Formats: sequence, C-alpha cells, structure tokens
Amino acid sequence: MSYRLLYPLRTYLVVSGRLGEEVNVMAADWVMLMSVEPFVVGVGVSPKRYTHGLIKRYGEFVVSVPSTDMVRDVWIVGSESGPGKLAKTSFTLIRAQKVGTPIIREALANLECRVIDSLNYGDHTWFVGEVVAYSYREEAFPGMVPSLEAGFLAHLTRNKFATFEKRVITP
Amino acid sequence: MSYRLLYPLRTYLVVSGRLGEEVNVMAADWVMLMSVEPFVVGVGVSPKRYTHGLIKRYGEFVVSVPSTDMVRDVWIVGSESGPGKLAKTSFTLIRAQKVGTPIIREALANLECRVIDSLNYGDHTWFVGEVVAYSYREEAFPGMVPSLEAGFLAHLTRNKFATFEKRVITP
Repeated sequence: MSYRLLYPLRTYLVVSGRLGEEVNVMAADWVMLMSVEPFVVGVGVSPKRYTHGLIKRYGEFVVSVPSTDMVRDVWIVGSESGPGKLAKTSFTLIRAQKVGTPIIREALANLECRVIDSLNYGDHTWFVGEVVAYSYREEAFPGMVPSLEAGFLAHLTRNKFATFEKRVITP
Repeated sequence: MSYRLLYPLRTYLVVSGRLGEEVNVMAADWVMLMSVEPFVVGVGVSPKRYTHGLIKRYGEFVVSVPSTDMVRDVWIVGSESGPGKLAKTSFTLIRAQKVGTPIIREALANLECRVIDSLNYGDHTWFVGEVVAYSYREEAFPGMVPSLEAGFLAHLTRNKFATFEKRVITP
C-alpha cells in the first residue's frame, strides 16, 4: 500500500464507450496532465477494469471532474463493475462536442480525449489522450482558476474522501 | 490555461542531482502513480527546468511530500531557477537509502526513483521512475492511510495554495 504515500489524490471520473452503443463510467485517482500545448492528459486504468476494454475499443475517453455533491455516485462507479451500475447513479450522459464518448452533465468540467498512446509499466495501463474539446462550469473555474467553493473531491482510501478548506494559502 | 481544469492538484517536490556533486529541488504538481507492483511513478518536467538536465544526467530523482509548514520553501523552489535558491530554504538534504539523489528530511515522505523511461507528447518530459526505496513519517500515514491532520499541500495557481478540510467524507 506504499502507493498511498502520494495520497490524498484528486478523484475524477473516466467515461468510456460510445453514446448509443455501450457506455461506462469509473472513478479514477490516477489522472494527470502531460502537456499544456498540445493539451495532453494521462489516465491509469487497470486491465481488469471494464473501462479498459472500452478505451481500447473506441480510442476515446472523457475525464469528468466531480464535486462533493456527487460523492455517492462516485463511490458507486468506483466500487462496482460494468455499465449496469450506471442505473443506480443520477449521472446524465449527454453528447460531447468532438468525441463519441458522452460527457457528464453534472460534472464541474469534462475533457474530451482521443487516445494517442498507451503504456504499461506494471499493473496499470497509462492511456495518453489529447484533449480535443472541453467544457466547464464557469463558477467552478472563474478566470480559469479553480474556486475552493466548488467542492473539488479527493480520495484518501476505499470509501473515504476529502475536500479542500475554503482558504487560500499564500507563502 | 485550460489545463487548470484538473486543478487543484497536489504539490510535491522533486529532488534531482547527486549529493556531494550538484543538487536541485523544484516544486511539481504533475506527479502521478503509474503502477502499484512494481511501484512506478511519473513526473512531468519542462525541458526548460534545471531539474530536467539533472534527471537526464543522473537517471534518478526523489519525489518528496511537503506539508503546509513548508509552503514558503515550496514557493521559493517553484518560482526560482537553479541550485542557488536552495540556500534560501530550510530544507535539509540527507543521504537516501538507494539512490545518489538526496531526500528532504523535513518532508512527510520521500520516494527514491530510478528512471526507467522518458516520454514527451508536447512541452513537458514525463519521466517514469521505479520507486526503489521510500521513507515517511508514520504520523502522516498511520496504517499507510494519509491523515488529514498532516497538512498536505495542493496548488491552485501561481502563489496560491490550499490544503484539505480535516473532515473525512463518506458516501
């Protein structure tokens, strides 16, 4: 469990599949920026996950930013497997701008990604995606700076989550 | 600035170089797990950074976990370039267990990494490192679960940082 030394980590949602065909959502802590220009992100997904097959198949995924209001649904999609769990959530999956994978209407932001590479150094595949479109709630990112009022979610372990103090720390 | 849609992100310190030769420390938000077993992490570093040359040269780096108590020093090493800035900080650089790069005594945890790959999809190099040794403060990670009392640091933008509420959220 030594990987917990980098925690708490932000928790995101990864949407995979294609609207009208098959869609899945998982919770993912292993999401990171890899380049600003072009805008590239990486996502770590275990080959055991249903999402893994869908990203491989469609070559696209969406990274969605949940808030603390969505923690129950984050937990459902993080702890159960396969698209059947989606019926238990209140996620609204809607058409994205540039990819076939849907975005989540309730999310604070949605990043639409096309896979440009995939790597594996052990037990997770690291999918590298170019962000081809994005959308977000202006109140969560006023002036493109995240607002501490937005309730950004982080993960401690299992079903334990956290959020940020509404206090900016300056050196 | 659309990359800010994944923020706030945790802020870490990346130590590079070799004790007794040349050492540098930078602040880095782009740090992520890539595999549990083997224990592999990735770090995004701009080729413009002094740290980039040192990691290339020595093939090793250390990821250190700062606390809110260290935010002034985090800001110094995040906003100034080159090893000269280290004299302005109160970091104590001490010998690591398995790599020539030193660890930071004041940090909540130190992950000693050997570079196993490096990738570039745009304006940052993504150094992939196998964690060959680590050390940590037991009080910050009791039972290897991060404690919200530890003052883990996150980054909003420029000189604006944040930390977590001392409240565990359960779905």
